[in-house]
Amino acid sequence: MELFRVLGTLVCTERIGGLQHWSLRVLEDEKGRRQVAVDPVGARSGNWVFTVNGSAARYAAGDFSVLTDLTIGGIIDYWEPEERRAAASVGGSG
Amino acid sequence: MELFRVLGTLVCTERIGGLQHWSLRVLEDEKGRRQVAVDPVGARSGNWVFTVNGSAARYAAGDFSVLTDLTIGGIIDYWEPEERRAAASVGGSG
Amino acid sequence: MELFRVLGTLVCTERIGGLQHWSLRVLEDEKGRRQVAVDPVGARSGNWVFTVNGSAARYAAGDFSVLTDLTIGGIIDYWEPEERRAAASVGGSG
Amino acid sequence: MELFRVLGTLVCTERIGGLQHWSLRVLEDEKGRRQVAVDPVGARSGNWVFTVNGSAARYAAGDFSVLTDLTIGGIIDYWEPEERRAAASVGGSG
Amino acid sequence: MELFRVLGTLVCTERIGGLQHWSLRVLEDEKGRRQVAVDPVGARSGNWVFTVNGSAARYAAGDFSVLTDLTIGGIIDYWEPEERRAAASVGGSG
Repeated sequence: MELFRVLGTLVCTERIGGLQHWSLRVLEDEKGRRQVAVDPVGARSGNWVFTVNGSAARYAAGDFSVLTDLTIGGIIDYWEPEERRAAASVGGSG
Repeated sequence: MELFRVLGTLVCTERIGGLQHWSLRVLEDEKGRRQVAVDPVGARSGNWVFTVNGSAARYAAGDFSVLTDLTIGGIIDYWEPEERRAAASVGGSG
Repeated sequence: MELFRVLGTLVCTERIGGLQHWSLRVLEDEKGRRQVAVDPVGARSGNWVFTVNGSAARYAAGDFSVLTDLTIGGIIDYWEPEERRAAASVGGSG
Repeated sequence: MELFRVLGTLVCTERIGGLQHWSLRVLEDEKGRRQVAVDPVGARSGNWVFTVNGSAARYAAGDFSVLTDLTIGGIIDYWEPEERRAAASVGGSG
Repeated sequence: MELFRVLGTLVCTERIGGLQHWSLRVLEDEKGRRQVAVDPVGARSGNWVFTVNGSAARYAAGDFSVLTDLTIGGIIDYWEPEERRAAASVGGSG
C-alpha cells in the first residue's frame, strides 16, 4: 500500500459507468507522482492517506463491480517509529 | 488510476484478436513515459485522461474477454484543490 | 500496454514447463529497460511492438495455462497524432 | 518479492473495514521509497523483511477477504552469496 | 518477464507458511534493484535468469496455493540479436 497526500477532486463529464457514484481524488506522493483514486473514507485535501491497488481496490470500493485500480484505504493520523506493545519505552531502532 | 495526455492513434496491421474492434491510443504522462490504452470514452488527441489498469481495464473495455491491461476511464475537465461540499469557500489547503 | 523494440530471441535450456512451446523475445523500451515476452504475432528484431501484461498476457498467449506475465499484443506500423475520422485535415493538437 | 526495512507502525482512526484487525507497518526500501504492509509475522522496527504483493498478499494475511495489496512474508536473518548444498566450499561467484 | 542475476539465498527463520518448502533467491537487475523470488529451476549464484510475476508466479511455483509474487521462469543461456528461422545469415537489424 502506498502513501499519498490528497490534492483535490477530479471533475470528468465523460467517464466509464463502472466507476459508479464514486468521486475521484487526485493524490500526490513524496516524489511528486500523481495518481487518481476512489475514496470510500472521506479524505479531505491536505490529508495523508494510504491506498490499496489491484483487485483489492475494487472490493475496498464496495464490490468487485467497481472498476477502479486504486482506492483510499485510510486517513493517516501519524506513525510511530517503535511499537509500544509492552511498555513505555519509545524510540526508533534503526 | 494514472493521468495521461492523448498523443494519437496506433496503427497495427498485425495484432492479437483479443483486442477486438477497439482502437488503441498512444498516451504520455507528465514525465514523458508512453503507454497504449483502449478507449471506450472517445478521447481526442490533446485531451487529459485517467486510465484504469489490471483486470478492471478489461471490464472497462466491455467485458473480461478484451485482452487489454490499460483502458481510458474518463476525460478530465479539470480538478479543484478543495471540495465544495457545503459552501462557496474555495482554496487549496496543503 | 507498453511500447518496446524487439532486440532478439532468448535461449534457455532450463525453463518452466508452463511457458509451453513459445519462443521468448528480449525487448527494450525507450529508456533502455529490458523485458522478456511471449510472441504470438511473429515480431522480428527491430520491430516496435506493444505488450499486454498481467492475466491478459496469459490469454493473449493462447489460454490461462501459459505462465507468462508479458505477451506481445501487436506490431506497430506507425501512429498518427490526430485521428482522421471525418475529414482530410491532419495535424497534432497539443 | 521486495526487500524493505520496517520503520514503524501506522495509526489510522479512519480506515476501511476490509483490513480487519491487522496493524499496518511503514516500510522503506534501499532507495528511500516508503510502502505500507500488513504484518502476519511480527516484525519489529529495524528488521529487514521481504513482502508479497498482489492477490497473494491477501491470502498471506489470512484469506482473500483481507483487502491488502502488500503483506510481510518473512523476517530476513541474512542471505548468503553461494548455496552450500553439497559441501563446505563457500564463496560468491559473480 | 524481467531479467535478473542471482546473488544468493535468503535465510529467514520467521516466514509465512504459504511459501511452503521453497528456497528464496536474492536477485539483482542491471540497475542494482533487488528482488526475492522462488526458484523451481535450480538457478545458481551468478546465473542470469528471467522471472514471472503476478498470479502466474504462483502456478509456476507449483500451484495457486504458493504465496509468491515472483518466480524464476528459466536460466538464460544466451540471447541472439536475429532469429535464424530460415538460413545461416545472422545479424542484428536495428
